[in-house]
Amino acid sequence: MSIVIIGSVAIDSIKTPSGQADEILGGSATYACLAASIFSPVRLLSVAGEDFPRQYLKKFKRRNIDISGLKISEGTTFRWTGHYGENLNEARTMSVCPEKLAADSMEIPAHYNETDYLFLANTDPEVQDWLLKRIQPKKLVVLDTMNLWIRNKLPALKKLLIKADILFINETEARMLSDEQNLFSAAKKIIRNGPEIVVIKKGEHGAFLMSKKDFFAVPAYPMEKVKDPTGAGDSFAGGFLGYLATRKGGPTCGNLRTATVMGAVTASFTVEDFGTRRLEKTDRSAVEKRFHEMREILRF
Amino acid sequence: MSIVIIGSVAIDSIKTPSGQADEILGGSATYACLAASIFSPVRLLSVAGEDFPRQYLKKFKRRNIDISGLKISEGTTFRWTGHYGENLNEARTMSVCPEKLAADSMEIPAHYNETDYLFLANTDPEVQDWLLKRIQPKKLVVLDTMNLWIRNKLPALKKLLIKADILFINETEARMLSDEQNLFSAAKKIIRNGPEIVVIKKGEHGAFLMSKKDFFAVPAYPMEKVKDPTGAGDSFAGGFLGYLATRKGGPTCGNLRTATVMGAVTASFTVEDFGTRRLEKTDRSAVEKRFHEMREILRF
Repeated sequence: MSIVIIGSVAIDSIKTPSGQADEILGGSATYACLAASIFSPVRLLSVAGEDFPRQYLKKFKRRNIDISGLKISEGTTFRWTGHYGENLNEARTMSVCPEKLAADSMEIPAHYNETDYLFLANTDPEVQDWLLKRIQPKKLVVLDTMNLWIRNKLPALKKLLIKADILFINETEARMLSDEQNLFSAAKKIIRNGPEIVVIKKGEHGAFLMSKKDFFAVPAYPMEKVKDPTGAGDSFAGGFLGYLATRKGGPTCGNLRTATVMGAVTASFTVEDFGTRRLEKTDRSAVEKRFHEMREILRF
Repeated sequence: MSIVIIGSVAIDSIKTPSGQADEILGGSATYACLAASIFSPVRLLSVAGEDFPRQYLKKFKRRNIDISGLKISEGTTFRWTGHYGENLNEARTMSVCPEKLAADSMEIPAHYNETDYLFLANTDPEVQDWLLKRIQPKKLVVLDTMNLWIRNKLPALKKLLIKADILFINETEARMLSDEQNLFSAAKKIIRNGPEIVVIKKGEHGAFLMSKKDFFAVPAYPMEKVKDPTGAGDSFAGGFLGYLATRKGGPTCGNLRTATVMGAVTASFTVEDFGTRRLEKTDRSAVEKRFHEMREILRF
C-alpha cells in the first residue's frame, strides 16, 4: 500500500541535557518518512531551500523514499533551533527561520494522486487542507498537529478534523484542543468533533488509541536515556502508518492496536540519539525485536 | 496467608474540583486494609483518639478486618485537611492535627507476631522501623512512604529501605528519593539501595514494577471522572498485597505482575468517590471484572 507524507523538511539545531547537534536533518515529514519507510514504500511531499545539503537527500534515497515531490526552491531551508530542559517534555524554540511549506509552493507529482494513505504530518493546517483538496487517498487521512496551530489556527484545524480519519496528538495538546483536563474525556470529545480514531501520545508514559468501538493502551518502551526527544511524535505516527499499510485488512481494531505498539517502539529508537541519527539506522528486525520485548513486558 | 498493616487511621476533610467531604474516615492503613481485605484476612495496627466515631470501627468489622491492634488512646484522632486543584496530582495540606501513631503508643496483640506479610503503610519511618524490630513477617516486608519523609527523615528511611522487600512509591517521590529524573533509572537506583522490588505508581499513567529479574508495566484503568484521589496509592498497595497473599507461590514474577494489575484496578474504585465510600462497597468480583477489562484493553 502506498503512503504520501506531507510536512516540513528542516535543518535543526538542538540542545538537550545530553549535548547538542547543529544543522542536522529535521522536520516532521522527515521523521515520519524515515519511520514509515521501515515498513512500507513512502512518498514525500515538501519544500526545501537551495542550501539543503545533498547528503541529506541521500538519507531519503537510502531508504527508497520517493522524493520526486520534494521541491528545492529559492532561498534557505526552514530552520529550527530548540533547547530542552531536564524534563525533556517540551522544547523551547530559540529561533525559527520561515517555513517554506506554503500552499502555492508545492508541486504534486501526478503519481502521488494514486495513494492509499495520506499523512498530513505537523504543519500549518491551511497547507494541510490545501493539500487534502488535491490528494484524495483511497483509504485513510491521518493528521498530526501541534500547540502552535491549536493556538493560532483553530478554525482551520477544526475544519480539517472533520475530514481526518485518525488524529495523532500529544497529551498537552489533546487537553488544549478539547478543553478537557481528563485525557479519556479529551479523546472522546475529539472523536465527537471529527476523526473516527485518536491516538494520544504521552511520551515516557506511552500512548492510547481510542475509537468509537475500541480502547487500547500501551506503556512506553522503557528507556533509561533519552538523548533528544525531537521527532518522537512524528516517528510514532510514521511507524504506526507504515506498519498499518502492510496489513491487508487495513484499519481493523487488531491492526490498529498492533500499529500503536509498532509506532511506540519506532519512536523509542528516534530518541536514543540526536535528530535522525538512530532512526536512519533502524530496520524492521530491530523494531520487531522491541515489539516482542513489549509483549513480554506487558504479559500477565 | 495473614497480613499485618501498620499505618495511620485518620479523620479527613477533603476538597476537590468535584466537591467536598468533611470528617470522613481516612488514613494510609485504613485504605490499605479495606483494599487488602477484598482478597485476604487483614490485621490492623494503629492508634486513634477517643473521638474516633464508632461507625468507622464498623466499617473495618464489616470487612472482617482484625482491629484488636487498633488502640483508642486519649485525645483526638489524627486529622488531615487537603485540597486538590484541577490536575489532582498532589493535595495541598491545609491543616494537620498531630499524628497519634508513635513508637510507644502502639500495643501489638500477641497473635500479630505470627504473620506472613507485613505492610508498613505510609507513616513516619522511625515508627515503621520500631515496628519492624518487633514484628518479623515470615514472607515479605512491604513499605510505602511519601515526600514528607524523604525530605525530613531520609537517614531513617534509607535504613528501612535495606530491610524492605518491596517498596511502593509514586513517580515524584521516586525521582526525589533517587535523585534521578528518568523513572527507569530511578527504579534501578532504588533497587541497588535496598528493596528487591519497587513498584512506581504514576496515577493516570498507570504503574510499573521493577525487580532485579523482571520489568512489568501497566497503564491505568481508564477513568473519565476522578472525584477524589486520596488513598489511591494506599489502595493500590493494599490490593496488590491482598491478592499476593492469596497466591501459594508467593512473590513469583507471574504473581507479582498479576498483583500489580489487581492493585491498579483496586485503586480505580477508590478514586470514584470521596474517601473510602466506593472502596468499602467494592468486592472481589467487581475488582476481577475490571481486571478482565484490563486484559482486553492491553491485548494486541
